[in-house]
Amino acid sequence: MRRISARSIAFQGERGAFSEVAVRQLAGEDSPVLPCPRFEDVFRSLAEGRAIGAVVPIENTLAGSVHENYDHLLSFELPIVSETSVRIVHNLIAPEKLHFSQIKRVFSHPVALNQCLDFFQKNPQIERIPFYDTAGSVKMVMEEGLTDAAAIASSVASEIYGARILRRSIESDRQNFTRFFLLRTAAYARRHRAAVKANTPWKTSLVFSLHNQAGALFRALSAFALRDLSLTKIESRPLRGKPWEYLFYVDFLGHLDSPQVRNALGHLRELADFQRVLGCYPKGA
Amino acid sequence: MRRISARSIAFQGERGAFSEVAVRQLAGEDSPVLPCPRFEDVFRSLAEGRAIGAVVPIENTLAGSVHENYDHLLSFELPIVSETSVRIVHNLIAPEKLHFSQIKRVFSHPVALNQCLDFFQKNPQIERIPFYDTAGSVKMVMEEGLTDAAAIASSVASEIYGARILRRSIESDRQNFTRFFLLRTAAYARRHRAAVKANTPWKTSLVFSLHNQAGALFRALSAFALRDLSLTKIESRPLRGKPWEYLFYVDFLGHLDSPQVRNALGHLRELADFQRVLGCYPKGA
Repeated sequence: MRRISARSIAFQGERGAFSEVAVRQLAGEDSPVLPCPRFEDVFRSLAEGRAIGAVVPIENTLAGSVHENYDHLLSFELPIVSETSVRIVHNLIAPEKLHFSQIKRVFSHPVALNQCLDFFQKNPQIERIPFYDTAGSVKMVMEEGLTDAAAIASSVASEIYGARILRRSIESDRQNFTRFFLLRTAAYARRHRAAVKANTPWKTSLVFSLHNQAGALFRALSAFALRDLSLTKIESRPLRGKPWEYLFYVDFLGHLDSPQVRNALGHLRELADFQRVLGCYPKGA
Repeated sequence: MRRISARSIAFQGERGAFSEVAVRQLAGEDSPVLPCPRFEDVFRSLAEGRAIGAVVPIENTLAGSVHENYDHLLSFELPIVSETSVRIVHNLIAPEKLHFSQIKRVFSHPVALNQCLDFFQKNPQIERIPFYDTAGSVKMVMEEGLTDAAAIASSVASEIYGARILRRSIESDRQNFTRFFLLRTAAYARRHRAAVKANTPWKTSLVFSLHNQAGALFRALSAFALRDLSLTKIESRPLRGKPWEYLFYVDFLGHLDSPQVRNALGHLRELADFQRVLGCYPKGA
């Protein structure tokens, strides 16, 4: 078990969750971690100094953007310093000595069970049992010493709980990716932006609001188009309690300190009711 | 129990799921229904004539767009004929004779349990137990005749399984809405567009793809802005297997048969690699 310290990276879920896979990609294999019950706790751990970083999922190729985390990005003002993409690989995981033929029950989160329907159709003798959490189901199967049960979770969960992978990659759809952000403090983000070598391609994430008028978004996007800045994501979201105003999340290629980006943000400020930079970070693979 | 017939509206989930609440809003309180295990089955039921309509969730205010259903909209080519928004109200539901003080365990889908954290913090004597489905947990609690257990689900689930609501609206966040589409056959959609009175505001939903170049989206949106057509939603999504191309989902106010919309779509066709109208329907409340 790794130590949990003020040098930890916070994430939501049990040890071995897919967010912990993202922590390893973003902060290194040996980074100490701080598992948290809720997304809000992840942000709070960093804001209050119990962790030096926070890793949160922001969008999934099947399920879409995690709006809750966009809300927390707005209210906590913790900057994004890097991004990564994790392929959601589901593995059938059981205690060391069990054989596949002994498995009669499989525990996991209902979403994970539903993403392995082809496996269950081929193995109708196996019962599916919903559980709170993918990694938590591995923990439970190991702790209870069940002799007819397996779990579905990440390979990291198998490693952490000393279990064995009986079947790798049993998910029906291999095009299931989740994009994660690493957040740090504002002071760290400023140093980081200067330190990382300049010829890396950079991305900037931005949120702004527009009053709903025909052509409002078109005019706002002129701020980017006129400076040849490429958008990599755009998404609108109705503003809570303000029926005809919209928030827009935009990611584009460019460094916050470059003249084009500074000019684009100045131009956009003339048009938007509200605007905030969520982070500027090296473009992920 | 309502009859299930070829006049049914298909939806995903158990009887009493939030999708069935949407069916009632979209097709009337008395519409016969066809519950299906997967979203794909919902589309297939309509495509193959086992149902006359299909109701699917398309976006949620907390969880974002349901990309899987956008994929099915593209592959099945079944037009949207109306939209509605359902507030996700979670109720504590138990057999008729139980009192709140007797409840020791509560079953529901993990997402629903997590959306009622304030309730569980105020009632620490109650254990949370994950279950497949919100409505399915009501069905199970009723069928098993449990004397210490309740479920969390919609009020429609309580009505269908003859249960009682012990506590109404125990969700922590009241700003949790899901938008649903009703799909019908192409022939129905054509008649419907002509029959609904002309002074209703209409929406059109569209998907198109652009090759990623700086300013590509800006030029595409000029097709709408130059004709004063207001966008109500825009979302980009990377195209599977084509790393630098994007799909865009756009909703805008306007009727497909109006000259402005016809001209905008003609203009967009010059710029987009691919474009498809997903439906034209009266704007929901």
